[in-house]
Amino acid sequence: MRAVDFIPYYAVIFTSKLADSNGYAKIAAEMEILAKQQEGFISIESARQEVGINVSYWKDVESIQRWKQNFDHLKAQQLGKEKWYESYTVRIAKIEREYSFK
Amino acid sequence: MRAVDFIPYYAVIFTSKLADSNGYAKIAAEMEILAKQQEGFISIESARQEVGINVSYWKDVESIQRWKQNFDHLKAQQLGKEKWYESYTVRIAKIEREYSFK
Repeated sequence: MRAVDFIPYYAVIFTSKLADSNGYAKIAAEMEILAKQQEGFISIESARQEVGINVSYWKDVESIQRWKQNFDHLKAQQLGKEKWYESYTVRIAKIEREYSFK
Repeated sequence: MRAVDFIPYYAVIFTSKLADSNGYAKIAAEMEILAKQQEGFISIESARQEVGINVSYWKDVESIQRWKQNFDHLKAQQLGKEKWYESYTVRIAKIEREYSFK
C-alpha cells in the first residue's frame, strides 16, 4: 500500500452516490486505466457499497489539475453529471503523515 | 456530504484488507458510534469491496490524536492487528479544497 517514499503528496478523495449505474463500470474502468498513465499519478483505491469512495494519490496538485482537465476525463465527468451521479464530493487533500501495518 | 463551512479540516484515510472478518462488523460499528461522540469529529464514510476504505473527517489534528488514544479505540486497534487485518494503511490528510455536485 505504501506508494511513495516522500511526504507530503496529495490525495483526491472522490465520494459519490449513483442515480444510474448503467454503463458506469465500463467508463470508470477506462478512467482508471487513463489515470494510471498520467504524469504524477501514484496509485488509486476504490470501493462502493451505499457510497462509492475512490481515493487517488498524486505527487503534486499540478498533476491533479492536469488530470482534471484531461480531454477524455472531461467527457467522462460531463457524462457522470448528466447520467450516473446522484451526488458527489471531491476533496483535494495533502497527505501529511502515513503509517502501515502488515 | 458537505460537512463543514471551513477549510482546512482533516481526514483520516484508513484503507485495509481483512484476513478474518469474524466479529469485525460489530466492533467496526461500535467504533463508528464512538468516533461520532468525539470532540472534533465531523463525519465518516466507509465502503468495502476488495479493499476497505474508511474516511473520517475531523476539525483538527489534535482531535485525531485524541481519538487514536481513546481507551476503547486502542483495544479495538489491538484486536484489529491480532485478529482481523491482513494489512492497513493510515493516512492523515489536510483537506485544502472541496466541491460538490448534487
